[in-house]
Amino acid sequence: MPKRNIYLKMKTLSEALEIWSSKTGTMRTDEEIIPVTAGLGRVTFAPITARRSVPHYHGAAMDGFAVAARNTFGASDTNRLQLDIRTQAFAVDTGDPLPPGTDAVIMIEQVEQVSDKTIEIRSAAFPWQHVRKVGEDIIAGELLLPRLHVLRPADLGALLAAGAAEVSVFARPRVWVQPTGSELISASRAAVAEPGQIIEFNGTILSAMVAECHGIPDLREIVEDDYECIKRSLQDAIESQSDIILINAGSSAGSEDYTSAVIADLGEVFVHGVAMMPGKPVILGMAGGKPIVGLPGYPVSAIMAFEQFVRPLLFSMQSMDFPEFESISASLGRKMPSKLGLEEFARVILGRVEGKVVATPIQRGAGIITSLTRADGILQIPQEQEGIEEGADVRIRLLRPRNQIDFTLVMIGSHDNAIDLIANEIRARDGRIRLSSSNVGSLGGLMAIRRSLAHFAGSHLLDTETGEYNYAYIERYLKGKAVRLVKLAMREQGLLVRKGNPRNITGIDDLISPDVSFINRQAGAGTRVLFDYLLQQRGISPESVKGYDQEEFTHMAIAVSVLSGRADAGMAIYSSARALNLDFIPVGRERYDLIIPESAWDDFKTCCLMDVIVSDEFRRLLTSMGGYDPTESGRVMGIWNGYEWTERQV
Amino acid sequence: MPKRNIYLKMKTLSEALEIWSSKTGTMRTDEEIIPVTAGLGRVTFAPITARRSVPHYHGAAMDGFAVAARNTFGASDTNRLQLDIRTQAFAVDTGDPLPPGTDAVIMIEQVEQVSDKTIEIRSAAFPWQHVRKVGEDIIAGELLLPRLHVLRPADLGALLAAGAAEVSVFARPRVWVQPTGSELISASRAAVAEPGQIIEFNGTILSAMVAECHGIPDLREIVEDDYECIKRSLQDAIESQSDIILINAGSSAGSEDYTSAVIADLGEVFVHGVAMMPGKPVILGMAGGKPIVGLPGYPVSAIMAFEQFVRPLLFSMQSMDFPEFESISASLGRKMPSKLGLEEFARVILGRVEGKVVATPIQRGAGIITSLTRADGILQIPQEQEGIEEGADVRIRLLRPRNQIDFTLVMIGSHDNAIDLIANEIRARDGRIRLSSSNVGSLGGLMAIRRSLAHFAGSHLLDTETGEYNYAYIERYLKGKAVRLVKLAMREQGLLVRKGNPRNITGIDDLISPDVSFINRQAGAGTRVLFDYLLQQRGISPESVKGYDQEEFTHMAIAVSVLSGRADAGMAIYSSARALNLDFIPVGRERYDLIIPESAWDDFKTCCLMDVIVSDEFRRLLTSMGGYDPTESGRVMGIWNGYEWTERQV
Repeated sequence: MPKRNIYLKMKTLSEALEIWSSKTGTMRTDEEIIPVTAGLGRVTFAPITARRSVPHYHGAAMDGFAVAARNTFGASDTNRLQLDIRTQAFAVDTGDPLPPGTDAVIMIEQVEQVSDKTIEIRSAAFPWQHVRKVGEDIIAGELLLPRLHVLRPADLGALLAAGAAEVSVFARPRVWVQPTGSELISASRAAVAEPGQIIEFNGTILSAMVAECHGIPDLREIVEDDYECIKRSLQDAIESQSDIILINAGSSAGSEDYTSAVIADLGEVFVHGVAMMPGKPVILGMAGGKPIVGLPGYPVSAIMAFEQFVRPLLFSMQSMDFPEFESISASLGRKMPSKLGLEEFARVILGRVEGKVVATPIQRGAGIITSLTRADGILQIPQEQEGIEEGADVRIRLLRPRNQIDFTLVMIGSHDNAIDLIANEIRARDGRIRLSSSNVGSLGGLMAIRRSLAHFAGSHLLDTETGEYNYAYIERYLKGKAVRLVKLAMREQGLLVRKGNPRNITGIDDLISPDVSFINRQAGAGTRVLFDYLLQQRGISPESVKGYDQEEFTHMAIAVSVLSGRADAGMAIYSSARALNLDFIPVGRERYDLIIPESAWDDFKTCCLMDVIVSDEFRRLLTSMGGYDPTESGRVMGIWNGYEWTERQV
Repeated sequence: MPKRNIYLKMKTLSEALEIWSSKTGTMRTDEEIIPVTAGLGRVTFAPITARRSVPHYHGAAMDGFAVAARNTFGASDTNRLQLDIRTQAFAVDTGDPLPPGTDAVIMIEQVEQVSDKTIEIRSAAFPWQHVRKVGEDIIAGELLLPRLHVLRPADLGALLAAGAAEVSVFARPRVWVQPTGSELISASRAAVAEPGQIIEFNGTILSAMVAECHGIPDLREIVEDDYECIKRSLQDAIESQSDIILINAGSSAGSEDYTSAVIADLGEVFVHGVAMMPGKPVILGMAGGKPIVGLPGYPVSAIMAFEQFVRPLLFSMQSMDFPEFESISASLGRKMPSKLGLEEFARVILGRVEGKVVATPIQRGAGIITSLTRADGILQIPQEQEGIEEGADVRIRLLRPRNQIDFTLVMIGSHDNAIDLIANEIRARDGRIRLSSSNVGSLGGLMAIRRSLAHFAGSHLLDTETGEYNYAYIERYLKGKAVRLVKLAMREQGLLVRKGNPRNITGIDDLISPDVSFINRQAGAGTRVLFDYLLQQRGISPESVKGYDQEEFTHMAIAVSVLSGRADAGMAIYSSARALNLDFIPVGRERYDLIIPESAWDDFKTCCLMDVIVSDEFRRLLTSMGGYDPTESGRVMGIWNGYEWTERQV
C-alpha cells in the first residue's frame, strides 16, 4: 500500500490567515512603466507631479467675444456700448486663446451684432470673466496623483493633460496555475472521457478568478500525479516570471497527494490543512521567494480556499485595497447545523419574500460546482458556532449584484423539468427576473410556503382518500396562510427502465421480483406519495420492493440512477425518461400545481410567471417535451384564505 | 461673422433619458460564439443545457477503500470485520471510479491495515456512502445556465465540465470614439503645445469609460472642425462595425459646432441640449441605425453626459443589468446653491468627521478635470431643488470604494505645498490613508473646524496687534470647540516676480508704482492678512496698489499669474516661486500651523499625520523645497479646551 500523508497540524482559518499574512503581506510586485492610455485600474507606483500647466494659456471659457474689461466699464441697459469687432472685440470660441490686450469674454448670448464691424453690449465685463486662466486646472510642479492611487478614467485624462504619456504602476501579479492529476483530461477531450477521467476545469475557474483580481493567469498543461513530474513543474514555476504559484490539487492526504511534500522539498510549508469547509485540504508555502498555494481538488473547495488565501494576496501585491465583498442581511430559511471548530461556507439562494430577504441553504457537497453556479450567496458560519437557527439574522455575501435580489423569484418544492422551461421563458420576457429554485419535494415546498420562504411552490401531492391533488394538504399544512392553487399541467408518471427494457418490467407489480432493483424518491415527494399509493392499492408491502429504501431527490436523478445501472427501475415523469433516452412505462397521470401565497399574487414577478404559463409558447414547448398536458396551464384551481376555500374547482 | 447654431428645444434630463431609452432601449448586440475560457463576465445569448452528466461515472468522494456495502453489514467496535484488499476492498483516491461490484467508500481514517492483504473496519458502510454518483452535479440535458446570465468563474467551470467548449454570448458593443476640434493635438505633442492648442485627452477618458462598461472602444484620430471632415468621419463610423458612435465635441452652439448639423444631415437628432450641469451641450441622435452621442468638450461635462446616456446603453446593449452606483449618506458641509430646472452634479470630498460622513463640495468648473480626480463623490441636485442647505442629509455617489472613507483625512484651510508632501508621506507610511484637501484659506479652515467638517485645518493667521499667529483667531472663532495647535513649519513669504525681476521690485513699497500690477490673495487667506498688515505698517492704502482687487486662491495660482504676465508681482511662499522658476523677494517669516480638533487627536489617521510631520524624512524633504524651517515641526503650540488655553507656548 502506498504511503499516505497526514495533514501537518491543522490550523484554524484565522491562524492560517495570520501566518499567511505575516509571510506574504508585505510582498509587492515590481514597478512597470506603461502608456497612460493603458492605465485604467492600475495602481501608481510613485507620486506623479504635473509636467505642464493646464491650461497653458489664457483661453475663452465661453463662445463669445474677447474684450479688455476696462473698455466695457459703464455699459448698462440704459447705456449700451458699442465695440469695434476688429480692434476692441474679437469673436472667440471656447478654448480659443485670448487675443493680446484682452482679459475677459462676453457670452455670445449677451451681445448684439449691430453691423459687420460692431457689436453692442448692455453690461460691463469684469476682468477675467469667462476666461480659463493658465494653470486654473493643473499647475506645473504640483502633485497630480499620489502614490498608490488606482487610476480611473478621469485620472488618465489629467495625466495626459499634464504632459505625462507614460505612468509608473505596480506590475500586475503573474500567477502560475498548475493543474495536477493523472485522472485529469483537457476539456477538449470531454466527448471521449472514460470512467476515472475528469475534465480539468478548475484551472479555468482559477484563471478567471485571478483575472477578476487584476492578476495575469498563466494556465499550464496538466501534470500527472508523480512526485518528480510535480517537482519539475514547480521548479519551472519558481524559475519563471510568476509572482504566485497555484498547484491544484494533490493538497489532501491521499496516496497520490504529493503537493505538500514537493513544496517542502523545494522550500517551506507553513500550513497544511485549514479548519474550513469547503477548502480544508489547502497548503500554504513558499519556495524561491514565491508564495505557493496548494488548492483542493473539489471545485467549490478550491474556490473557497482561493478566496481566503489567494485573492487578498493578489490585491496586496499590487498595493490595491482589498475590495469589500458585497453583502446583505437576510433571515435564514432553514436551520444550518455546523461543526464546532470548523469555519463553514454554505451556499444559499436569496429572495425577498413578504418584505424580508430570505436565505435558503442549498445542501450540496464541495464537489458540486452547480451548488455555486445556482447559488445567490454564501453564508459563513464561524468556527465558534455550532450552527444557526432557522429565522436567525445572518449576513450573506452576495454572488450576484444586490439589485437582482428584488428580481429573484424563489421557488421551493417539487422538481419538474417544466420549472427550467419557466425560468427560461420568464427571462426572455423580462430579462431582469431570475428564478432561484430549491428542490425539496412537494411537502418541503408546502413547508416553505408556510414559513414564508418562497414566492411559489411546486406540488403534486395526492390525497389517497379522495384521489384529489393538493387540496387536502393545503388544508392540513397551511392553516392561516392564504394561497392560490394554480394548475401548471397534467403529466404522466411512470416507471423508467433502461432502453429495450432488459428486465421486461410491465408495471408496478413487477417490482417485487428479486431480480429487479428499484430507486425511490425521498419521503415527502409527490412521486413517493403516488408510488406508496400504487403499492397500497395492489397490496404490495414496501419491504418486498428491493431498493425501496434507496432515495433520490429529483426526477432526473432517478433517471440517471437507472441509466447508470444503479437500479433497474424508478418512478419519474416522462420528460426525464426522454431526456436520457430511457424507456417509460406509464402508471398514471397526475396534476402538478403551483401554490402561490396571496402575498405574492400581485407581485410583478408573479405576474410575469403567470403570463408565461398561460402563453401559447409555453404550452407549445411543454407539449414538445412529452408527457405533459398543458391544456389548463394557469387555471386557478382554488383560493384558500387560510381557513377555507373561497373558490375551489371540483 | 460665421453662422451660430442655437440649441434645439432644451430637454430636462428625465425627458432626454426617456426619449433616449425609447429610441435605444431595446437595441442589442449580435450573438458571438467564444471559447468558454474567454467567457468571464460575458452574458449568455441563449440558455445552455448540459451535453454530458457530471460526474459521468460513480467515483470515490473520499480517499479510502471501495467496498460493497452488503459485505460490511454487522461491523462494529465490538465486532471488527476484516476485508481482503484484492477481492473485497480496493484502495481508491478521491475521483477514482468505483471498481465493479462496489457501491460505497470507507474513509482511510476509519480503516486499519492489519496486513498486506487485509484491512479491518469497525463500522458498516451504507450503500453509496462517500460515492459521487453519475449526474450528482450535472445531468445531461438539464438547464445549466439560463439566457442573459453573466458568466462568473464557477460558471465557466460548470460549462467545461458539462462538455461545452464554446459559449454563445452577446457581443461586446464596439464604440467609435471620435475626437473633433481644430484646436486639439495629440498627447504625444504635449511638449510643443502652443497657445490655442489643447491636448486631446477626452478620447482616452471616454475609451476607458467604455472599457469599464465592458464595451470595446475604438479611439480615432482627431478630426478638424470642418463640416465636411466631420461628416466624412461620421459616414465612416456608420459604415464601420461600431455599435455606438461618440463624437467629442462640437456639441455646443458655437460657430464651429457642426456635430448636431452633421448628425441631422446623415440621420436624426432627437435631443440637443439637456438641462444638466455639467453636461448641458449634449446631442442624442441616430444615423444608419446606430445611436450617436455628441458629447461636450469640457472633460467633466463629457464624463457626466457619458454616464447619463452612454453608460446605460452599453449595459443594455449586451443585456447586462445596469450596475447600481455605490452611494453613501452624508451631511452636506456647505450650502450648495443650484438653479431651478437644472440637474446639477457637484463634486465633493468625503470624510468621516466626529462620527458623521461629511461631504464638502469642491467648487470648480466643468473644464477642471482635477475637480474629478480630487473628488471622492458626486452630489446630484435634482432640477426641482433650488439648492441644498448646509448640514442637510444627502446621498453621495462614490467615486472611490466605500471603505476608503474611513481612511480619508480631510484637510480644509490654507494651501501650502507642504500639504502635498504630507499626503505623499502619509501614503508611503500607511497605504490605506488618503488625504482629501480643500483650499479655502486660513479663515475658511477655522470655520470648517468649527462646523466639524475637517480633521485638521492649515492656518497662518497673523494677529496684527500681537504679531502672534493663530491664537487670537482660535479664541475668537472656536468658542466651545477644543483643538490643538500644532506647528508645521516657519516659512518665508515674499513677492514673486518674473525671472530677472524686470520691474525692479525690491519690496512692498514698490507696489504703489503705476507701472506695477499686483495679484492678491482672497480675503480670509493668511497671506492676505499678512499683506494687509505690511501695507498698514507702511501707511500704504490698498487703492494705491494696482490689482489689489484681483484675487487668487492658492500660492501656486499667484505664481502662475506672475509667470503668465497677468500681474507683475504677487505675495506667496518661496516654494511656489521655486516651482515655477520665479524670482522671490522675501518680506517676512511666518508660522504655518495645523489646527486639530481634540475629537480627531487620537484618531489613527491623525497619529499617522503627526508621525509624518515629526519625521526626519519629512523635515529633510520640506527643507529641500526651500523657504521652510521645519525645526519645530509637530510641536504642540497650544491646547485650547474651547474656553481657555490649558497649555500655550509663548
